[in-house]
Amino acid sequence: MSNRIYIVGIGPGREEMMTGEAIAALEQADVIVGYTVYVKLLGERFAGKKLLTTPMRQETERCELCFREAEAGKRVALICSGDAGIYGLASLMYELGEEHLQTELIVIPGITAASSGAAVLGAPLNHDFCAISLSDLLTPWEKIEKRLRAAAMGDFAMAIYNPSSHRRKDYLQRACDILLETIEGERPCGYVENIGREGTRAVTCTLRELRDRKVNMFTTVFIGNSETEILRDKLITKRGYHVENNIH
Amino acid sequence: MSNRIYIVGIGPGREEMMTGEAIAALEQADVIVGYTVYVKLLGERFAGKKLLTTPMRQETERCELCFREAEAGKRVALICSGDAGIYGLASLMYELGEEHLQTELIVIPGITAASSGAAVLGAPLNHDFCAISLSDLLTPWEKIEKRLRAAAMGDFAMAIYNPSSHRRKDYLQRACDILLETIEGERPCGYVENIGREGTRAVTCTLRELRDRKVNMFTTVFIGNSETEILRDKLITKRGYHVENNIH
Repeated sequence: MSNRIYIVGIGPGREEMMTGEAIAALEQADVIVGYTVYVKLLGERFAGKKLLTTPMRQETERCELCFREAEAGKRVALICSGDAGIYGLASLMYELGEEHLQTELIVIPGITAASSGAAVLGAPLNHDFCAISLSDLLTPWEKIEKRLRAAAMGDFAMAIYNPSSHRRKDYLQRACDILLETIEGERPCGYVENIGREGTRAVTCTLRELRDRKVNMFTTVFIGNSETEILRDKLITKRGYHVENNIH
Repeated sequence: MSNRIYIVGIGPGREEMMTGEAIAALEQADVIVGYTVYVKLLGERFAGKKLLTTPMRQETERCELCFREAEAGKRVALICSGDAGIYGLASLMYELGEEHLQTELIVIPGITAASSGAAVLGAPLNHDFCAISLSDLLTPWEKIEKRLRAAAMGDFAMAIYNPSSHRRKDYLQRACDILLETIEGERPCGYVENIGREGTRAVTCTLRELRDRKVNMFTTVFIGNSETEILRDKLITKRGYHVENNIH
């Protein structure tokens, strides 16, 4: 297979939070394709490259651009914030790739907001957890509600992506109301704004307080499970009880 | 606060899959503490450091060792495979840290097996997903069953950690039987052995086939959701339908 496209998760933005193989994939690329904001995050280091950007909501065009460049013989890296395979473009590339079977696709994982946000807040996902996006652009809201209820029923810790946008100001409140059907209002929660970027801000609160917080679109929200506590103003989900010499 | 301990996620093992800040935290450390196998994974690069290891199941001792070294004035890095905050030691460090409030704790995120394994398999977690561990050392099996049922009910894609061990050879089979109560046997699934290490091997199969596969303890298992397909022998979870100009 001659052509190859690297689908690269660049993490939250700061280069120190990229992996060595992600940096190598960008360094070897002739063309770097991405959403305008993320290409800007890369800064000077890759200034020598041909940078192609498309605005938000034009993901299909962005992916097709990658195939066109690769099939013209260019070494292409498509960048996604966080992890390319978690709410990123990896699966859309494979779907569109059915029309481009001569082009090899290689996914390079990155630090997703669940990991980077959790590290700032302490350890809110240190046991079984769910990642749920509140964006209903690609998912019916009824399905998002169903997943929130299932996550609460399973006593999962949760990382909530896309909690808000200019079009969806009340979605976090709606999500909290669904969780409050089964989870106590005092449940420890938290959120992190601008993870790994200028102005990172971590806040702990209760689920009832979270319901009335205004968060921006660069925020990731964390819901504790029944064993989560706030220690040192950090959100800490315990690993569960310890059974010595537990034999099965 | 004078003392400081870095709790560092080193990813699956290969240095190219560590972040720059993780490498920097190990480089600045006087003492690197970890489970024997992971300290060995680091290889020659940190050979100059004082390396302290404890065997598996001695996590509390390992954490206390970090506090002792830090309070003796050493710069300490505690390493965890994958992400320190996802089935790692970050939360236990915060719990034990209640007795060591003069020691600051800093979590450095790493690439967890959900991300690194997904990249090898294609894009199995490219929508809402759950991470569930089948280890019942710290969690009653009944709770694990409850979470598997909740994840299936919510139509989550799943990353299953610790699917097997010498003590728990049939746990993956038991988990698949629970999922098969509500998920069709043809559901696309997959698993990855030795992610980011010698002998990485990715396999796609159906849920019914997965039930009877023997996997080792260095395997991460992936369960598709209702929109997951196998394309190019990769496990691809679609991002959902596209609604143009979706207004709310």
